[in-house]
Amino acid sequence: MSATPGSSTSTAERAAMLHALDLAGRGVRGANPLVGAVLLAADGAVLGEGHHRGAGTPHAEPSALADARRRGNDARGGTMVVTLEPCNHTGRTGPCVDALIDAGVKRVVYAADDVNGAAAGGARRLREAGVDCVGGLEAARSQHLNQRWTASVLARRPFVTLKSAQSLDGRVAARDGSSQWITGAGARADGHRIRALADAVLVGTGTVLADDPRLTARSEPAPSAPPSAPGLRVVLGLTPVPDDALVRGEGFLHLATRDVHAALGELHALGVRHVLVEGGPRVASAFLRAGVVDELFSYVAPVILGDGAPSFPDLGVGTLTEAVRWALDDAGGPAVRQFHPDVRLHLGPPPPPA
Amino acid sequence: MSATPGSSTSTAERAAMLHALDLAGRGVRGANPLVGAVLLAADGAVLGEGHHRGAGTPHAEPSALADARRRGNDARGGTMVVTLEPCNHTGRTGPCVDALIDAGVKRVVYAADDVNGAAAGGARRLREAGVDCVGGLEAARSQHLNQRWTASVLARRPFVTLKSAQSLDGRVAARDGSSQWITGAGARADGHRIRALADAVLVGTGTVLADDPRLTARSEPAPSAPPSAPGLRVVLGLTPVPDDALVRGEGFLHLATRDVHAALGELHALGVRHVLVEGGPRVASAFLRAGVVDELFSYVAPVILGDGAPSFPDLGVGTLTEAVRWALDDAGGPAVRQFHPDVRLHLGPPPPPA
Repeated sequence: MSATPGSSTSTAERAAMLHALDLAGRGVRGANPLVGAVLLAADGAVLGEGHHRGAGTPHAEPSALADARRRGNDARGGTMVVTLEPCNHTGRTGPCVDALIDAGVKRVVYAADDVNGAAAGGARRLREAGVDCVGGLEAARSQHLNQRWTASVLARRPFVTLKSAQSLDGRVAARDGSSQWITGAGARADGHRIRALADAVLVGTGTVLADDPRLTARSEPAPSAPPSAPGLRVVLGLTPVPDDALVRGEGFLHLATRDVHAALGELHALGVRHVLVEGGPRVASAFLRAGVVDELFSYVAPVILGDGAPSFPDLGVGTLTEAVRWALDDAGGPAVRQFHPDVRLHLGPPPPPA
Repeated sequence: MSATPGSSTSTAERAAMLHALDLAGRGVRGANPLVGAVLLAADGAVLGEGHHRGAGTPHAEPSALADARRRGNDARGGTMVVTLEPCNHTGRTGPCVDALIDAGVKRVVYAADDVNGAAAGGARRLREAGVDCVGGLEAARSQHLNQRWTASVLARRPFVTLKSAQSLDGRVAARDGSSQWITGAGARADGHRIRALADAVLVGTGTVLADDPRLTARSEPAPSAPPSAPGLRVVLGLTPVPDDALVRGEGFLHLATRDVHAALGELHALGVRHVLVEGGPRVASAFLRAGVVDELFSYVAPVILGDGAPSFPDLGVGTLTEAVRWALDDAGGPAVRQFHPDVRLHLGPPPPPA
């Protein structure tokens, strides 16, 4: 059945899948994949829709069921069209397959299979419960949407978000090292918001010695923080962290290595599924060189310094064709946003070849 | 009268002036100032509105009069509210004061005085013709809008637009010098569009030797090109320009100097009122150091090179507080635009202190 989803799905289901993919793209990248869902009545009418808004919040299918209830619609006998195989796993939320079975959904059409061992097996479980289940519709688009997330799951490492703040000409400091502040208060507040979405924040020892940051999110606590690693603040590098560094305290972790892969393996073992790498430039470049940066937020200030520390030194790129091409990424909101007086670019994996 | 514009203007006139300022900001920067105009009936109703769309196109007042005619409205007895003193000068278009008098406008409320010697004297001429004339309403906002244009007029030099194209980390080439192409076809086509708006395009001798550009606008001819300098292609620097360089031909000019101010003086004497500086990096930095860059278009490609020629070398900025702060500039369209896969930032003078 899943081999020929096109012939076994209705026009309404195929249209709903395209809408579900759009909904999926409204979520924020991180510990969980981007997923969208549309609940259809037997006649193809839309009963409800939803998408996953990030770790710690409801999955797409329960969100679409809740939307149907809010609209006064009965899910019984309906079809759930969803961009990822429903999960069969109790994490911070219950298994989606149970929610679907309990709601009386009689058919599920999904795009990509779940690659996450712990959560997979949803389709089999649904079929055992008598739910008609078709996979593979628009699988390529769903897979592309979560291409980097999937790579991180398969590599058993956290999803990596890199954040940088620089002048228009790519400097993180002026010639004399002065760097506070290149970007304005709006960009810095947004940076704290992004920090609050990750399980862990990571900087290099150089940043600790230069700036002595607290690395706490000034607003709310991380909603996605797993119990094993509540708001972990990670310092990477061989240099000792001073006893009076502000980053110390509960949730502080010093990874005394320069090996990015080893550091990510250790964080994964601690339960970290989403790490925000904040710099400095040497750490940023180490993660880029290792090929493990899954998305990038770059704050660009409308100031030109002409000299000073570069934002991404020593990438090992010799000629233009060797460079990684990123793409503006609309997941979670517009790829380009203004935080007066600065601009934020959100970059993700390049689009699939047309 | 012009000393107390607030007390001698009506509520409708003050509201119209704010709208005219918004209209002015829709124009493109260049050889002419940004100007907006709103034509009011005696009872304060809006009869027509317009703004100046760039050199070679109608001024704001004739544009508003034409808009009123299109709407079937009679300008006679009306009040023209305009952000700049109406010109008294025949350039590529006739004097606006004549158009106002001929249309039977009985009152003119304007914001800033015209600083352009050739075009000034409009208010005096209007009063002599019996038109009631009040200046100075919202003068500061109009002056700020044209702050850099005014500076260029007073310095008797062309308005300078700087264009650059770079990687996210501010490189115009990779380590081995490869640079074609960092930005995509969309950004390059937009660059040609910007080129067509200027009277002259300028590069350094280094760019001629490295890239051998034609410097022609591939689309239409420059609408604003003055008769004395049709699409001038200017090469700046002491190095000889090869006899077979593609930039040679009608409209080619080699300015054998490294003195930015001398070069701009010479261009002004030739009738050039708007020059587009396209690089390379050393020329861009020379213009920035000289403080004569009036606006900046920066194309940023979503690629990180980590090394290679910087977009703006040797600016002489030692510490962060010495750096010029630019501001995102909405004149002529959104300050930030996407030209897939790249982003274009439009920067202008910083906003006045609040």
